[in-house]
Amino acid sequence: MPTISRRSERAYSSAIRKLTPYADRAKAAGKHVWHLNIGQPDLETPPAALQALRENMPAVVAYTASRGLASYRAKLSEYYARFGAVISADDIVITNGGSEAIYFTIMSCLDRGDEILSPEPLYAIYNGFAESAGVKIKPLTTYIENGFALPDSKAIEAAITPRTKAILLCNPNNPTGTLYAKSDILALAKIAKAHNLYLFVDEVYREFCYNEVPYFSALCMDDVRDNVVVIDSISKRFSACGVRIGALVTRNQAIIQAANRYAEYRLSPSLLGQIFGEATLDVGPAYFQQVREEYKKRRDLLIKRLRAMPGVVCPQPEGAFYVVVKLPVDNADKFCRWLLDSFQHEGETVMLAPAEGFYATKGLGKQEVRIAYVLNTEHINRAMDCLEIALTQYKK
Amino acid sequence: MPTISRRSERAYSSAIRKLTPYADRAKAAGKHVWHLNIGQPDLETPPAALQALRENMPAVVAYTASRGLASYRAKLSEYYARFGAVISADDIVITNGGSEAIYFTIMSCLDRGDEILSPEPLYAIYNGFAESAGVKIKPLTTYIENGFALPDSKAIEAAITPRTKAILLCNPNNPTGTLYAKSDILALAKIAKAHNLYLFVDEVYREFCYNEVPYFSALCMDDVRDNVVVIDSISKRFSACGVRIGALVTRNQAIIQAANRYAEYRLSPSLLGQIFGEATLDVGPAYFQQVREEYKKRRDLLIKRLRAMPGVVCPQPEGAFYVVVKLPVDNADKFCRWLLDSFQHEGETVMLAPAEGFYATKGLGKQEVRIAYVLNTEHINRAMDCLEIALTQYKK
Repeated sequence: MPTISRRSERAYSSAIRKLTPYADRAKAAGKHVWHLNIGQPDLETPPAALQALRENMPAVVAYTASRGLASYRAKLSEYYARFGAVISADDIVITNGGSEAIYFTIMSCLDRGDEILSPEPLYAIYNGFAESAGVKIKPLTTYIENGFALPDSKAIEAAITPRTKAILLCNPNNPTGTLYAKSDILALAKIAKAHNLYLFVDEVYREFCYNEVPYFSALCMDDVRDNVVVIDSISKRFSACGVRIGALVTRNQAIIQAANRYAEYRLSPSLLGQIFGEATLDVGPAYFQQVREEYKKRRDLLIKRLRAMPGVVCPQPEGAFYVVVKLPVDNADKFCRWLLDSFQHEGETVMLAPAEGFYATKGLGKQEVRIAYVLNTEHINRAMDCLEIALTQYKK
Repeated sequence: MPTISRRSERAYSSAIRKLTPYADRAKAAGKHVWHLNIGQPDLETPPAALQALRENMPAVVAYTASRGLASYRAKLSEYYARFGAVISADDIVITNGGSEAIYFTIMSCLDRGDEILSPEPLYAIYNGFAESAGVKIKPLTTYIENGFALPDSKAIEAAITPRTKAILLCNPNNPTGTLYAKSDILALAKIAKAHNLYLFVDEVYREFCYNEVPYFSALCMDDVRDNVVVIDSISKRFSACGVRIGALVTRNQAIIQAANRYAEYRLSPSLLGQIFGEATLDVGPAYFQQVREEYKKRRDLLIKRLRAMPGVVCPQPEGAFYVVVKLPVDNADKFCRWLLDSFQHEGETVMLAPAEGFYATKGLGKQEVRIAYVLNTEHINRAMDCLEIALTQYKK
């Protein structure tokens, strides 16, 4: 029997997904599991966009251009203009979710052995694609004690090596919920410019900001237009993770050409997904207003509950729908498993994501978990009841 | 300005797609272009499956499991049973089209520097994914003069090196339309077993066979069950290329585990696509009967017309909806461009795919083109009128 590849044995496997069998067993045993472990919102996908797909289904569901439908890309460019970014349809490659945009970006810009600097904790899947592409992500560690703020420019510059080709940021951040200020983005752009680096910004949570400051997109900087690539997706914005439509956006045409070559291999993004995507661009601002209010309410409740638990350290996240929290336990991974296989409160328990998997540096994040506030306030309250009681019992 | 990656500069770019600007200009100049260059069928996507998607659209279009919906995989296993393959739901990973299944297969089974043997002319996109994965496809040349028959076992075994890890076959074949017999598959399986190689079979055209012999799937061989991986897709089967749903199928659980790790990186295949895919499994055999009859009629007409043209060599393809044809021209690539930019017959012209791009060996296929019979008989007749007249004019 031939053996599988050595690289697939090394392939990154999500720490969160490793807990799935525990959750499955808990459910099989009759427990209700509150899922705060994954960024799958419970909100309705905009019914008008689904209706538009129903009504506009073509008789032949054909391939589209590899880079995506011209009509969708044109309409997306108007969307980017809403927050001041001058993006043409030719600056966009439509992808199978934001994840494919990450892969195309890495393959187009970096060779094997090249390095990317990225603040940790970081979105774990970056590691997977980097590994597939033979690229190394070098972490810039950030700390819960100061709200996961970026290191200062000097510290970032000190981490640059001759192989460093890019800085990668998720803004607002998954997993921490940190919203970086305009000054942060400008500082990173300055470093990118000075050291001839790319600046990749994953902006899939762009609409999820809870302070009053307007969001500053990396696409709005003219002087680093050739350095910037933005990863985008409709998954979170429209509670449409299963549609698998994202985009790679850059004004650097050399990257667009390169990404198009990779896009050609897989022929076409989903036509059905793109029809839906195009329809989401008619969803009015009232939708986001309502979504933002809902998430803000959830966040405020979650933080209030967490801060009331003895020994829990919980920063104030200003974006996305995540928070990384330090728990009064030795090993959060073990605690998360215990929650699933040994704990229950009135037949219920809660599933959290151990934060260790979000760190590239071994040994960090052992006491931390990521909590996604993707459930309504009633359910968050019940999940927090579970966590509060669990922490009391676990210490004993 | 940072430079793009060297690997993206080397990235495979489709010879067919290079002709697209010529076709665009021809259309802009008012010419009608008959597209026989790409495997995009004109047949209707089964309306019942589209209707099922309309009616079953979920309120929240959420992620599914990375390997795909359990219900869809279970139903697919029943489909495989229809032609005698014992496949469980756990032997299937749902992918973004057949193309992602190819990529996952290569990444899961081969390391950088490993080699795959594959008959050429071959589906050009295999080269793209192989290149991305650092794997080399070593061609086993087949010849138009004997209907692109496989080389004999000795010749295949002579091509095996210490780095050879797999044999890759597309059956029925894209681009040649060759349908390999059960004896061919058994012979390849014997070689795979003897030399401890994988046998990858791309069976996306399984339903498109025009002789009376039942199709023999590589999934039906028990003794090489650990060697065989089948690439599958609903794109061609249901004229649904833009749905982007395929599958990797193998009874080798080590490969399934490895492929699942790569599947996790991109989180989930399309939920909408999977709902559609599940509905296609209720499409009855009458649909395929009708589709097969339609393609057979097209093929017979196409071959009759081609064989009536002086100097054209046209084998009899028994599967898929392609044929590779030798034209009485020095350079088919130039001729294809000439068809688009310098020729017209009653305001029309025809677009063909130069076959050179389907050969891995430099210099082969220079006089050949691939013709896809994806238009109805009336349109095939008009396209062949163009080709016939064009060949007469071009020679002068």
